[in-house]
Amino acid sequence: MAELDFIEAIKQRQRTMPNGTVGIGDDAAIIEQGHTKGWSVATDMLLEGRHFDSHVHHPADIGRKALAVNLSDIAAMGSIPRYALVSLAIPVGYGQDRVNLLWSGLQTLADSFGVVVIGGDTNSWQDGLAINVTVIGEPHPQGYILRSGARSGDELFVTGALGGSMVADHHLKFTPRVNEAQQLLAQVLPSAMIDLSDGLATELRHICKSSRVGANIRAQSIPISNRLSSKLSHEIRLRHALTDGEDFELLFSVRSDDASRVQTLPFTCYHIGTITSGSALTIDGIPLAGHGFEHSF
Amino acid sequence: MAELDFIEAIKQRQRTMPNGTVGIGDDAAIIEQGHTKGWSVATDMLLEGRHFDSHVHHPADIGRKALAVNLSDIAAMGSIPRYALVSLAIPVGYGQDRVNLLWSGLQTLADSFGVVVIGGDTNSWQDGLAINVTVIGEPHPQGYILRSGARSGDELFVTGALGGSMVADHHLKFTPRVNEAQQLLAQVLPSAMIDLSDGLATELRHICKSSRVGANIRAQSIPISNRLSSKLSHEIRLRHALTDGEDFELLFSVRSDDASRVQTLPFTCYHIGTITSGSALTIDGIPLAGHGFEHSF
Repeated sequence: MAELDFIEAIKQRQRTMPNGTVGIGDDAAIIEQGHTKGWSVATDMLLEGRHFDSHVHHPADIGRKALAVNLSDIAAMGSIPRYALVSLAIPVGYGQDRVNLLWSGLQTLADSFGVVVIGGDTNSWQDGLAINVTVIGEPHPQGYILRSGARSGDELFVTGALGGSMVADHHLKFTPRVNEAQQLLAQVLPSAMIDLSDGLATELRHICKSSRVGANIRAQSIPISNRLSSKLSHEIRLRHALTDGEDFELLFSVRSDDASRVQTLPFTCYHIGTITSGSALTIDGIPLAGHGFEHSF
Repeated sequence: MAELDFIEAIKQRQRTMPNGTVGIGDDAAIIEQGHTKGWSVATDMLLEGRHFDSHVHHPADIGRKALAVNLSDIAAMGSIPRYALVSLAIPVGYGQDRVNLLWSGLQTLADSFGVVVIGGDTNSWQDGLAINVTVIGEPHPQGYILRSGARSGDELFVTGALGGSMVADHHLKFTPRVNEAQQLLAQVLPSAMIDLSDGLATELRHICKSSRVGANIRAQSIPISNRLSSKLSHEIRLRHALTDGEDFELLFSVRSDDASRVQTLPFTCYHIGTITSGSALTIDGIPLAGHGFEHSF
């Protein structure tokens, strides 16, 4: 069973979602009960051999990534990350030095975004390193941004170059787009937003499915990362930009009237296409067949 | 380095705890920023070979426990569990049937306490089963209960019999004391409360250290579980009741004026001792040497 099918099955079983609460199926959940209005909560578990390799990657980079992927999810809601809870499963014999390095990588990133670690759980075991981080974010005064608000005619943007995240350990060292999301919301309220963890093609499909729309993107407008070797053909580089996971840029849509204001932001946003009616995903009008990475078990 | 030392080191590094927020060092953290007043957040990671054994335990019991330990933490804050986020690291080849059973155990317990699963993360990997659950709880109208409020002269109670949690899989099948905590708070505001995950002696030490008090408990008042064989000597059974982990009963203190009201609750609370001045932990006046379970790596 693919991960998304399993998630859909779990989602169906949550019968009593309180008013205003957003559950499974966005970058983060939103809790809106009682006095808590629109706080977002994201959780991600990083695993040895799946998201990092302790034989190759520095413990500080691994710890950093475990937090960064969650900050990226909170950024995609337009929210401000405030608190983190960190669970560690540490292999027997891993050693205190490496635990300290791992922690310092996580803590340095937390400090740089003003995130406070308020709890966690630490255990050793006979198996590989696993790190689970939960981050809680405060909503922007304008509210939070879901995947489901895109409408036909909206314009599509990404916050940075795509593809080749395994090169130079970008997937470990990326800067989550927390500040960019806040700058964006101060200027323009996106109609939908998502972070690019599983590749542009897959994440755009998530927006389109949630919003019940289609999209057309322009091949020549897609920013291809210079992490991808210039020796590769343009077609191969474009395919990487469309399908590689772990770019951790933001993909968002805005009403067409707001598109010009996106260009006044203090960072570059790339205008890659347009939301369309229907449900088709096309590139230069041709159906987009490629897709990003999806877990299965 | 022992787990508690590591946690203390992490705690020292959180320099900028927002007003009213409670961080590392209680059963759950409390977030009190902006419009969020006193919501509690707990996280626990359960690991193959450490907290359960897939060769012996039923997947539904494992899934159930992963949620139950967090509900117990939220109960110990006097809070009402509302939301859960569930991360699964599933061994390759574990199979969809077992994943479904695991999930159904967790979901059944969630449903019985009105808890909604609002998010999570699912991955497969080459190593053992790991489950991380984060639970978010709403405060009781009276507020939340910390470990740090016990004062000399307060009376100490536990909500049930102690020891032998490995017998008959009590450590998997216990009922988290969520409803009992709510009934208690409706009658009496405890001055301190904690759940017994690491054994009475250890958890009482946590209350005493946090509250800067001592305590004397009476051996004959400690409720010894009938899970412990009657063939064992009384001394051995008492030692188990004092030091076995994973009872998941609540230990709490109340002002002496409130003690009589504890006895009017619709469930049995055992009056095991008294909070004292100083910092000594004694049993019938003799220093308590034994301690519960502490992780190290």
